[in-house]
Amino acid sequence: MAEMNSGDFKAYGKQLIDWIAEYLDYPERYPVLSQVKPGEIKSQLPAAPPAAPEDFATVLRDFEDIVMPGITHWNNPAFMAYFGITGSLPGILGELLTAGLNVNGMLWRTSPSATELEEVVMAWLRQMVGLPETFTGVIMDTASISSLIAVAAAREALNLRIREEGMAGRSDLPRLTMYTSEQSHSSIEKGGIVLGIGQHNIRKIEVDAEFRMKPDCLAAAIEADRRSGGVPFFACATVGTTSTTSIDPVPAIADICGRERVWLHVDGAYGGNAAVVPEMRWVLQGVERADSFVLNPHKWMFTPIDFSAFYTRHVDTLKRAFSILPEYLRTAEGDAQAVTNFMDYGVQLGRRFRALKFWFMVRSFGVDGISERIREHIRLAHVFEGWVRATSGWEVVAPVPFSTVNFRACPPGVPEEKWNELNERVLNAVNATGEVFLSHTKLHGNYVLHLAIGNIRTEEKHIARAWELLKAERGRLSADASLSRNLPA
Amino acid sequence: MAEMNSGDFKAYGKQLIDWIAEYLDYPERYPVLSQVKPGEIKSQLPAAPPAAPEDFATVLRDFEDIVMPGITHWNNPAFMAYFGITGSLPGILGELLTAGLNVNGMLWRTSPSATELEEVVMAWLRQMVGLPETFTGVIMDTASISSLIAVAAAREALNLRIREEGMAGRSDLPRLTMYTSEQSHSSIEKGGIVLGIGQHNIRKIEVDAEFRMKPDCLAAAIEADRRSGGVPFFACATVGTTSTTSIDPVPAIADICGRERVWLHVDGAYGGNAAVVPEMRWVLQGVERADSFVLNPHKWMFTPIDFSAFYTRHVDTLKRAFSILPEYLRTAEGDAQAVTNFMDYGVQLGRRFRALKFWFMVRSFGVDGISERIREHIRLAHVFEGWVRATSGWEVVAPVPFSTVNFRACPPGVPEEKWNELNERVLNAVNATGEVFLSHTKLHGNYVLHLAIGNIRTEEKHIARAWELLKAERGRLSADASLSRNLPA
Repeated sequence: MAEMNSGDFKAYGKQLIDWIAEYLDYPERYPVLSQVKPGEIKSQLPAAPPAAPEDFATVLRDFEDIVMPGITHWNNPAFMAYFGITGSLPGILGELLTAGLNVNGMLWRTSPSATELEEVVMAWLRQMVGLPETFTGVIMDTASISSLIAVAAAREALNLRIREEGMAGRSDLPRLTMYTSEQSHSSIEKGGIVLGIGQHNIRKIEVDAEFRMKPDCLAAAIEADRRSGGVPFFACATVGTTSTTSIDPVPAIADICGRERVWLHVDGAYGGNAAVVPEMRWVLQGVERADSFVLNPHKWMFTPIDFSAFYTRHVDTLKRAFSILPEYLRTAEGDAQAVTNFMDYGVQLGRRFRALKFWFMVRSFGVDGISERIREHIRLAHVFEGWVRATSGWEVVAPVPFSTVNFRACPPGVPEEKWNELNERVLNAVNATGEVFLSHTKLHGNYVLHLAIGNIRTEEKHIARAWELLKAERGRLSADASLSRNLPA
Repeated sequence: MAEMNSGDFKAYGKQLIDWIAEYLDYPERYPVLSQVKPGEIKSQLPAAPPAAPEDFATVLRDFEDIVMPGITHWNNPAFMAYFGITGSLPGILGELLTAGLNVNGMLWRTSPSATELEEVVMAWLRQMVGLPETFTGVIMDTASISSLIAVAAAREALNLRIREEGMAGRSDLPRLTMYTSEQSHSSIEKGGIVLGIGQHNIRKIEVDAEFRMKPDCLAAAIEADRRSGGVPFFACATVGTTSTTSIDPVPAIADICGRERVWLHVDGAYGGNAAVVPEMRWVLQGVERADSFVLNPHKWMFTPIDFSAFYTRHVDTLKRAFSILPEYLRTAEGDAQAVTNFMDYGVQLGRRFRALKFWFMVRSFGVDGISERIREHIRLAHVFEGWVRATSGWEVVAPVPFSTVNFRACPPGVPEEKWNELNERVLNAVNATGEVFLSHTKLHGNYVLHLAIGNIRTEEKHIARAWELLKAERGRLSADASLSRNLPA
């Protein structure tokens, strides 16, 4: 058997293009949530690699027979767990070319187009969501890294010589404290752990009835830390928290951060995308005063993972935090500061050419096309919300500012202390059908169902089917003796 | 103009497959190093995004006309700068499918195949380079992240409650010190900066005449730090340093680290790949005693960027350093510890399905096929080394254990104090031809040329042409009045 040559590549490549097109025309042919058991995929694969080349047709057969059953279909229009996403057709073609070119955009010189197209599309996206020119953008892989980058830049902005002297064993260094809401994403906490801030110095600020950070609690926490000798240096406000998509009051938080000289990072990984819809632009109110901001086009702007858009008003601080220039990476144009070398603005030296897929996507949809799709997702969420609100024995448990609904069954026929168990069993039963995939969260100790629309193929019929399944499973389970009040029949 | 539909996707996708196949059949049609000026690409692109969809044919025309001239062709067989890389045909098809499926493998449940295929291929790769089963693998995006992960795991292994209490303002915390050779990659230092260790606590251990870390200097540095109250906790040995590809004496370093209870990380990002060649297996001698190890298949194992293979013997420590489990990411199978959830083992929550491209590549080449290609790269480097050694007025400045040659022009007709300038001008002149791309480094203050072979398409004729150009430019420049001794003609 010979290795793949360019003729084989053409034949198999075209077969895969057809396969992907047909797959995306009707992803519902597969269960949305993979139905395999732990270890089932592994057990079908050889424990050792092949010594000799295998025919690629065999590999593709194994892909279909072994790998595909273990795929959970994020492309399925009934994928409504976590945050629904869409790779989009032009985005996929962008990834194909990125792999074909296989450039590493660490330096301007190692592909000027990778650097300059990144500058261009990050300026486009900035305009699309209405941020001012004071923000400079850098493409990161994930929001987790963007969170870490934000905390690192804030730490560097303290001018405490942490880059040079480190943090441990220094008697001149105060305790550093950071702030985020109790509803914010776990990556903020992870950033604080990695950066050596420590979980106990990360204050999870209380939220109001609508799950938004309470600014007076933030101010009080900062004051308390200052009184006890801590140095507050970083606060994160979220536009679209992970569980309820609540929107922290950024303007009030920006007031406090400005007064207290605390770096303000705004996490709009999900919600920030909505600002491309003109009537949703308000969600980023106050963000122009943030020190850094992130939104993830790979979450809700039709870009294949990974693509996280990080912006900051202090790009020099970012560079001070991260730039290291060994001789082997020096270039004349870099020394002359005639170009941007993106390796200077983050952890990773190696950088995929991620701008390409976003450029393809924006030009193929147009900003209006993107906006229309996001608007439709928000409309669908409100339709679903309406159904839940109109049905007795169900409740919507949080406001719906974006395309995500948090709700639960609360049937009078089941004692309240059994509602958590009921909702968990409803979720498992609905997901086991393979027809729809929802996820869950907990709010005030209550087990809550989470339906998030972000797939470009999701239509009203898909949310209708989800609702039908939810009601049916709730009905079936409410009658379960272990859950019901045992009322007379 | 309508958005792209699946018929368009098929047509354009196939066009791109043909384009990539033909591009890779003859990448030499383009200058290897892009010849554009700073700002030239940007100036041709609109400053604002389009409101309406554009025809994809227009987008692809712009790709050809505007983007392509700004590409530095890592695929060109004459790309010999930094470390040459190859995406490979099956690897590209893997990336295409990864983008088509667009799964996020953060949890087992969110695509069991992404998790289990990752476990399988990481076990394959472990066997391919001869590491024992005590090592568990996790795919990271880049070696920069793998370096950071290694330092973080080592810090966690100290059991100093840094995850919980942080590092700043703690009177109970000693100064922490880490060790790496003065020839190691900048990402080790960056990891130390990000983790809050601080540059001044990162000892750059002296190297011997062959650019290998001196174990006695490491032992002395550790002892000196202990005497002054520091706590040595992390050492990095490199198998294939970035400049000269020198191999640190891992067994001797492992002895010291074992005795001193210092976490030993081995950076084999480039050199580790060579261990797939049976007669090169020795380069990983001693690595079985390391606490963590990295090699990058996206560097020298025909896998498109990004794919960094991180291994550790202490996977529980890794999990302790990074795992955070918010309610919305809980699953029954995770709680039962029946599966691996890879989000627990690193910074990033979002994870591309990277195992697929590696699986395609290994099966398509076979281990023997991979080994043959790497063996050939090493042979070519020795051929080139032989030419340099055989030519007066040139010298090889470091041993050549892998596929990289460091050398310089040292013509007697030019005063020695002008050799740096001469070599820099030779490099610039050679790169300006667009026929070949080499890079440079500095060793003992000397400007040195760096030729690294890692492209699957590189043949003897390509290195012969590089050598011809180098000799011609040196000849031309040596005659330059500003460089020559002004000897009588």
